[in-house]
Amino acid sequence: MQKTIALDAMGGDHGPKVVVPAGLQVLRKYSDLNLIFVGRKEIISPLLQQTGADVSHRWQIHHAADEVGMDESPGLALRQKKDSSMRVAINLVKAQEAQACVSAGNTGALVATSRFVLKTLPGIDRPAIIARFPTLSREKEVRILDLGANVDSSAEHLCQFAVMGSVFAQAVDNIPNPRVGLLNIGEESIKGNEQVKQTAELLINNKSLNYIGFIEGNTLFEGKADVVVCDGFIGNISLKVTEGVAHLIAHYARRAFSQNWLTKLAVLPALPVLARLKKQVDPQRRNGAILLGLTGIVVKSHGRAGILGLASAIEEAILEIDKNIPRLIEQGLEKR
Amino acid sequence: MQKTIALDAMGGDHGPKVVVPAGLQVLRKYSDLNLIFVGRKEIISPLLQQTGADVSHRWQIHHAADEVGMDESPGLALRQKKDSSMRVAINLVKAQEAQACVSAGNTGALVATSRFVLKTLPGIDRPAIIARFPTLSREKEVRILDLGANVDSSAEHLCQFAVMGSVFAQAVDNIPNPRVGLLNIGEESIKGNEQVKQTAELLINNKSLNYIGFIEGNTLFEGKADVVVCDGFIGNISLKVTEGVAHLIAHYARRAFSQNWLTKLAVLPALPVLARLKKQVDPQRRNGAILLGLTGIVVKSHGRAGILGLASAIEEAILEIDKNIPRLIEQGLEKR
Repeated sequence: MQKTIALDAMGGDHGPKVVVPAGLQVLRKYSDLNLIFVGRKEIISPLLQQTGADVSHRWQIHHAADEVGMDESPGLALRQKKDSSMRVAINLVKAQEAQACVSAGNTGALVATSRFVLKTLPGIDRPAIIARFPTLSREKEVRILDLGANVDSSAEHLCQFAVMGSVFAQAVDNIPNPRVGLLNIGEESIKGNEQVKQTAELLINNKSLNYIGFIEGNTLFEGKADVVVCDGFIGNISLKVTEGVAHLIAHYARRAFSQNWLTKLAVLPALPVLARLKKQVDPQRRNGAILLGLTGIVVKSHGRAGILGLASAIEEAILEIDKNIPRLIEQGLEKR
Repeated sequence: MQKTIALDAMGGDHGPKVVVPAGLQVLRKYSDLNLIFVGRKEIISPLLQQTGADVSHRWQIHHAADEVGMDESPGLALRQKKDSSMRVAINLVKAQEAQACVSAGNTGALVATSRFVLKTLPGIDRPAIIARFPTLSREKEVRILDLGANVDSSAEHLCQFAVMGSVFAQAVDNIPNPRVGLLNIGEESIKGNEQVKQTAELLINNKSLNYIGFIEGNTLFEGKADVVVCDGFIGNISLKVTEGVAHLIAHYARRAFSQNWLTKLAVLPALPVLARLKKQVDPQRRNGAILLGLTGIVVKSHGRAGILGLASAIEEAILEIDKNIPRLIEQGLEKR
């Protein structure tokens, strides 16, 4: 099946300098893929000039004069940036000229614009951001949602997120009967805030879900659950705390080894192992958070992603197209 | 000044086997310290039998027949465990027979019982749990509160936490004009949930505080703020995510180095540096979260703490007594 993905070429901290080479890299890997680079033609075009003839018939440039800034208000972007690369890329999905869109741009603007242009699926009030994280168990990953598409979600919203996460784990990652947990500050049923207590009640009574109860922050990465549901405020803070801690530990390790010539020498034989380790835990290697609950496919890359990271986000979009995830979520909701 | 601390000898995962030796270790270090071991005499007494004569006149056992289980409901513990080691230790602070109490027991029960017995200070509606964390900056720590004494706190509660955290940083840790931040999902003022937006408004208008704005999860450990305020639900999840990520990284590192004999060999020269690094980031070394906002001093040790960790929690209680932190918070509130 031929597929087409629209890339927000101007999005992210690096813009076309990263998006264009990442796109070409993925184009060479998938012969049934077409890409539309959306953004300022005068900037994108020179970057594409040296493309080999092997893929040059499978990409095109779609000019968009404007850009959404990384710190811009989502509301303003939605109202005033109607010709931004992000908006036009999403419009292409709406117009069915592309089956998915990938952007490394402003998360808030991407959520607001996608929701406005593509609309949520019937039965879904709000989209949610989902991503995968490694666990202690070698083969298992944990999917967490919502990572920040919304704040102040109701119990009913969180229950919709649980259904979407479960369908995602089953359909995209081939996990039969995914174990769904709810993020909380304890495992006992008496603990938690009002939002969590109300959500737990809905989840227990939802027969379409394999709900396994509460998951605490420290057991999030133990592989006990395949899907963990939380409010977008909590999810986003947890995601960023994860980043912060990893950074802090790396910093301490560097400091310990660079203390004197003896400690510097001590690390030398370990360097190849450390390089491999870094690769394993590098978030770039599994970059690409997915907006679930919309009528079309939107993948969000980390704003700081490099070529490898952006290529991985594009590959995530290919996977979503192959599985037709919006249709599967719609079916999953009907079964409730 | 002579001081007396009541220890919940039965609390925590290890109970008296850890609390007694930790107490004796600290007794030997501080000649003006007296300890009251609270709990079952028949268990504590044999553990104290070999104590040297040098400190034997500075400890006593206060019998308490009951114990609070680590998973017990705080409400039930409060109503039904009136002769628990935890309750009796807090009672001793109330009766001014001790100036502080230290417990490694059930956090929820400790908060509920302390609040019931000791009451909050005038102007404080709820106590909060505060603890220190390392940052990228060698000399600076960040204090985070509330780490889980309450959930569903109002903006006014969070503002009270900010004042308490600021007084704590200034009085206990000698930081002049502490920089206070509010944990949020972005640094711009348009971001956040309702709770955070309302709190920000109160903090901006509070002239007694050096409020510096929002802090994100990934910058929590960068040393930008001396005190970071958040709801207890968010704080507890962040705390535990921190634990979970550190554990995950250690696990990955161990796996990378134990893959084959070559990688095992590679780590050998680095072992002494790694041991020192582990010591530096070991939460045991700075164990002891403090319940702020009560009329007395209550220090919570991690439930899994060993002798070193528990000793550090007792030393934290000594520091709080020396600074007379409840009185200072009362004064800080009057200045608002």
